[in-house]
Formats: sequence, structure tokens, C-alpha cells
Amino acid sequence: MTAPKDKMAGVQYARLALLPDGFRDTLAPAAEHEASVVRALVDVFQTYGYARVSPPLVEYEDSLIAGPGAAKTKAMFRLMDPDTQRVMAIRTDMTVQASRLAATRLADAPRPLRLAYAGSCLRVKGSQIRPARQFFQAGFELIGSASLEAEIEALVLAVESLHAVGINELTVDLTLAPIIGVLAEQFKLEGDARDAAVSALDAKDIGALDQFAGAVHETFAGLISAAGTAAHALPRLEALSLKGHAGKLTARLARLVDAIQTRLPDVGVTVDPCETHGFEYKTGIGFALFSRSARGELGRGGRYLVSAPDGTTEEAVGFSVYLDVLMAALPAPARADLVYVPYEAGHAAAAKLRAEGWRAIQGLTEEADPLKEARRLGCTHVLAGDKVVSV
Amino acid sequence: MTAPKDKMAGVQYARLALLPDGFRDTLAPAAEHEASVVRALVDVFQTYGYARVSPPLVEYEDSLIAGPGAAKTKAMFRLMDPDTQRVMAIRTDMTVQASRLAATRLADAPRPLRLAYAGSCLRVKGSQIRPARQFFQAGFELIGSASLEAEIEALVLAVESLHAVGINELTVDLTLAPIIGVLAEQFKLEGDARDAAVSALDAKDIGALDQFAGAVHETFAGLISAAGTAAHALPRLEALSLKGHAGKLTARLARLVDAIQTRLPDVGVTVDPCETHGFEYKTGIGFALFSRSARGELGRGGRYLVSAPDGTTEEAVGFSVYLDVLMAALPAPARADLVYVPYEAGHAAAAKLRAEGWRAIQGLTEEADPLKEARRLGCTHVLAGDKVVSV
Repeated sequence: MTAPKDKMAGVQYARLALLPDGFRDTLAPAAEHEASVVRALVDVFQTYGYARVSPPLVEYEDSLIAGPGAAKTKAMFRLMDPDTQRVMAIRTDMTVQASRLAATRLADAPRPLRLAYAGSCLRVKGSQIRPARQFFQAGFELIGSASLEAEIEALVLAVESLHAVGINELTVDLTLAPIIGVLAEQFKLEGDARDAAVSALDAKDIGALDQFAGAVHETFAGLISAAGTAAHALPRLEALSLKGHAGKLTARLARLVDAIQTRLPDVGVTVDPCETHGFEYKTGIGFALFSRSARGELGRGGRYLVSAPDGTTEEAVGFSVYLDVLMAALPAPARADLVYVPYEAGHAAAAKLRAEGWRAIQGLTEEADPLKEARRLGCTHVLAGDKVVSV
Repeated sequence: MTAPKDKMAGVQYARLALLPDGFRDTLAPAAEHEASVVRALVDVFQTYGYARVSPPLVEYEDSLIAGPGAAKTKAMFRLMDPDTQRVMAIRTDMTVQASRLAATRLADAPRPLRLAYAGSCLRVKGSQIRPARQFFQAGFELIGSASLEAEIEALVLAVESLHAVGINELTVDLTLAPIIGVLAEQFKLEGDARDAAVSALDAKDIGALDQFAGAVHETFAGLISAAGTAAHALPRLEALSLKGHAGKLTARLARLVDAIQTRLPDVGVTVDPCETHGFEYKTGIGFALFSRSARGELGRGGRYLVSAPDGTTEEAVGFSVYLDVLMAALPAPARADLVYVPYEAGHAAAAKLRAEGWRAIQGLTEEADPLKEARRLGCTHVLAGDKVVSV
């Protein structure tokens, strides 16, 4: 059958499948592999009682840049809603959306609230280490508990879900992003002095602390030099004898390290008390997971606050995995077995194989040499008589 | 642990979770249900040897409006790529993307090429019957076969995949969109006369055919009145004794109906030879699937052409399901069983239940009345001693 001349002739391409930087086609078997990894992660989240939610790709800009979203405002693609002439944006992250749900539609759901999600996110620019501008995020949030048990559950579940998809040799890096502000307040640093301290700690530059003396210098320098393995960091943090909220943060960190070493003995623990990049909205301990097999961070999480429209806040902790990094850390998947069923074998033969669990392609025409046809199509097997044989 | 005063206080909402029209949050258990339906559909596509591909949400506008995309050009959200200053668009449909892959990166893959896909699509406006502006599409394309066996495979697989997710009482509506242009050419209708015929057929308005006489009137009026069940339509189409390409189209339609009645005896068949809406780029038989349980079309497909950058074309046939319509046609899912494991039962008890296949929430603190706590959290079961009991 050929198309009549006056019909549009189907798909025409001006150029050869050029996609914008950071966007890509995932082909078989990688696309199936990614889908199965997402499924496996969410399945593990669900076994811990996390209920899957699916917020939309697009919201009004102002709800996506609220709170934790503020750090992402430059990263968002924006769209005009032609109906309302309001600016909408495409999500760069789903944690913000889970927080919105917790604070609004799920405000009356029992606490702690356990939510899981998985979906695509977009950002205007990729980074050098993560060039993707579209990536899949899968994660969970535990909202409404201030207990250390919440951090422990989040870390155990994060690690278990990564193990379930084949990522091992994990290290968790623990951060204490809010401690810098807390100490600046305790030391009554304001204006330029505060800015100088924050930027020195941010850059982990002990030399830049020269303008400070006494307890201020000692504490900030001690924080910077504490970074390292848990065995290195914890005694140094303890030796600083921090008081007030800063002391509570470091004591909590020590208890969390202890719990990790008990519950997750195979996971390495490092501490980076001054690390703030990407932890800007964390209000307590943050964590990032690394693996020897992965280039860059596999996922991150930590403690933050969810604020309701009435101004009340709730303690929350969560974790997200970025599939672009995760998939790159996994070995390439094998192609699934595929049987070629010759046309003349009949559709009942193909249906029988499928019912037995095979993937089966049925020939659409008779072929003189079914084995050759099976090979041409990239099948692993062919139905010969009533037997499935390797090609 | 409370946040220090000088830290940003987390998520703040200006208004109560207002989403733009046509975008929505899917909560548990619906979000999990939708994900499992998508998984089940793609699993069936894969058992027929369709290989999953995952093209990006965003492409340059000109590749998304190529060919079949042309009909969707007004429906697309557009974005500016800040790097290249080129206009990008968000996909409204994945068939266009599968065609692009077949014509470019997969140009040398063996034919027929079988591709499956599932993903979110966006459109600027919803319709009255399908208000969603974001919806999930799942489908498959069979590229590189002109055989009627290809249409049969597509229809059988479409029906089998819908059955697999619990949609029954199906009817397929077959269309012949290109026949109008073919007949206008055979009758040498041009200019106003051609336009009048096309619009009368499009509106199925026999009265508007009064300006035509003889064979032209008889054929067009016959086409309009042929619409109905296959038993009604086929004898009427045959009685028109169409010649040339129009005759081949109707003969092929009759053979397809015959195959459906043999292979899919439970599926009702109707024929609507003049229906063109949504079939604009079809070059042969189109089909839409309906169910008594669904409001509107569950999915559609049919024959079209894929054109390579060098101008050569390939015959293709495909099918897509729209999850917004499909999910609305399914009964609401039950919540999964969920066990509450008291804190003091220990994490090993929860781990054991999870390993046995349970979903288990572990309490983060000791609760005086675990049964009450299980009920408060919406759990279906509670671990009491070493027994799981209903709450």
C-alpha cells in the first residue's frame, strides 16, 4: 500500500536527530533497565510504608520557588500559561512538591507522613559532572518527626534501596550546614565579620580565618580541620566543646554515626561539617551517598522544615536519588532473550511462548530460512518445530 | 531540634496548593496504581518483542513539529534554550519521537523495527472530555512492514495489553481517513468542489453533497451512510465498487475486519470511513479503542509513513494508550496492606516482615498502645509479639 500523492508524507526531518545539549534518547535495553531500577527503588521505599505520590511536572512558578525551591530559581524552565497569563515552571526537584503536599492537601494526614515519588525533572543547565538537563529523580520524605530515629530510617532505607539495585561499597558523607550560622550567632558576628567567617568556612580556608582570634578562630579552624572520616572528625568536634544549638547538632551527629556503624556496618562514614553546597535549606544533618562505582553523588538528603501556609513548621527528613548518576554506575544491562516465531508456526505458538514467559516476535511473512531471519532480527532464539533453540 | 532563627524557615506557600488547570497531584494509592498499569502495559508490549525506548521530554521545536507533529503545533508548550537561543518544545505525543528514532539513530536497525515507550506528555489546552494538560502515554510502533499482518499484530497487542490491565468489553472503531483525498483525486475534484466534498464528508452531511451528481454523489453519500457496525458498513462499502487505491483501501479494511473477528471474537467492530479527526497523518486504516467502562477513547493507532531525512519513506503502524482515560475507566485501587511494627519490637522484626513481602512501618518512638497507633497511621495490621494481626 502506498500513500496517495496528495497526502502529507509523514515524518520529515530537517536535520539528523539533533537534540539540545543535556537531552538524550535512551534506547533499548538501557531504557528498560532504567525503568526497572526506578521500579525497584520505589518498591523498596514502599516496603517501608512510604506511599507513592505523583505531583505534576509543571506548577505555578511561585509554588515551585517556595522554601527549598528558592535555591533552584535560576535552574527552572518557565512557561506562560495561556489561560491565566501566569508564569508556570517545570520542576527541577520533587522534594519541594512533596513538601507542598504535606503542608496543604495532606496537612491532616497522620504524622509521621511517609511519601515516595519518582519522576522526571528538568533544569536549564547541567553541571560538568552531571550534564543532563533532564533526569529522573526517585526519593522519599518522612515528615513530622524530629526524632533521630527519622534520620536513621532515612539513611537505612537509602542504603537498602541502593543495595537493591546493585550499588555497593557505599560511603555516606554527613554535613552540618546550619552550624555555621548558629556559631556566627553564638559569637555575635555580624556584617562583614560574619560574611568573612561564612566565606572562609565555605571555602574551608583556615588561612582566611586570620582576622579572628581566641575561641572564634579556634572553633572555626577546628570545624574546618575536623572534615574527614568519622574516626577523624568526631573526636575533633567533641574537643571543640560546642555549646547550645551547635553542641546539640554535633552531639546528634555523633549519635547518628554510632547508629550507622551499628545498623550499616559496611557503609563508610565521612563528616564534612562546613559543607553547604546543595544543603542550603537543610536545618540539621545532611547526607550525601557515594559509591566507589559511581562518578559523583548518587543521592542526597537530610533534615529540613516544611512550613504550612499558616506559618507553622514541621520537622522532616528525606532522601533523593538521581538516576543519571545511578545508571552510569551500574553495569550495562544484557539484552533480554527474544524468540523468533516463524509466520507459518501460527499465532497460537507465539501466544503459548509468551504465556510461558518468553518474549516472542512473530514473523509477519513467511521466510525461507527462519534461523537466518531470527539472527537478522537480533533474536536470541528461534522456534523450530515445537522447540525453542538458541540461534 | 529546632531551626536557628536566622535560617530560612523551609517551605512557605503563598496560597493553598493551587495548581494550574489540567495539572494535578495524584496521591496514594492512585499514583502507585497508575505506575503499575504503565508497567503492565509495557510488559505486554515487551512480550511481543517491542524494545523500550525513552526519548526526552523536550526537543527542538522543528523536530517535534515534523510530519505527524504538524497537527500538534498549536498544542505545544515552547521553551527557549538559553544556550543556543533556539526554540525547544515539550512533547505532546511520543509517536513522533519513535518515528524520529526510526528514521535517524535506528535507520540501520533491522526491519520491521518494534519500539515501545511510556512517558509524560504536555499540551497547552485540554479538551472537554480530556481536561488533563499533562498525561501519560504508553504505546508501541511497528516500523518497516506494509503487510496487513502488521495492522493485525498492532490491534491484537493493543487489545491484549488493555485486557492485561483489566479493561474489557472493547470496541474498535476503524477509519479510512485518506480515502476522501483519494476519491477527490479519482473524481478530479479541484478547488471549491474538492473543498465542498471534503467538508461535507468531514461533517458527515449528506445534504451538503447536493451540488454533486451521479457517481460522485452516490459514492460520497454511500461512504457517509456506510458508517456503523462492521456488518452494516462492509456490504455498503463493497456495493460502492470503488476502484484503484480507494478500492484497495476498502478491500484491506474488509480483510482486517475478518481477521479481528477471528483473532479477537469478543471485540466489537465499527467502521467510520470518513472520520479524520486525530487521524490526519494516517495513510491507511486508523483505529480507536473504546470500552463500555471508559468515557472516551482509550487509545488510538493506525498506519502512517515514517520519512527519513533523505526523503525515503517507510510503512509503519502503531498504537498509543492515554492513561488519563484508561485510569478513569478502572475501579479505584485498594490500599495495600501495611503493618505497624512497634519501636520496641526492633528493626530486625520489621526487616523480617519486609523480607516476607509485607509493607511495614516501624514506629520511631515507643507508643503505649501500638494497636491504637497502627489505626491512627492507617495501617491494616500490627505486629503483636511475633504475630501480624489485623487492626
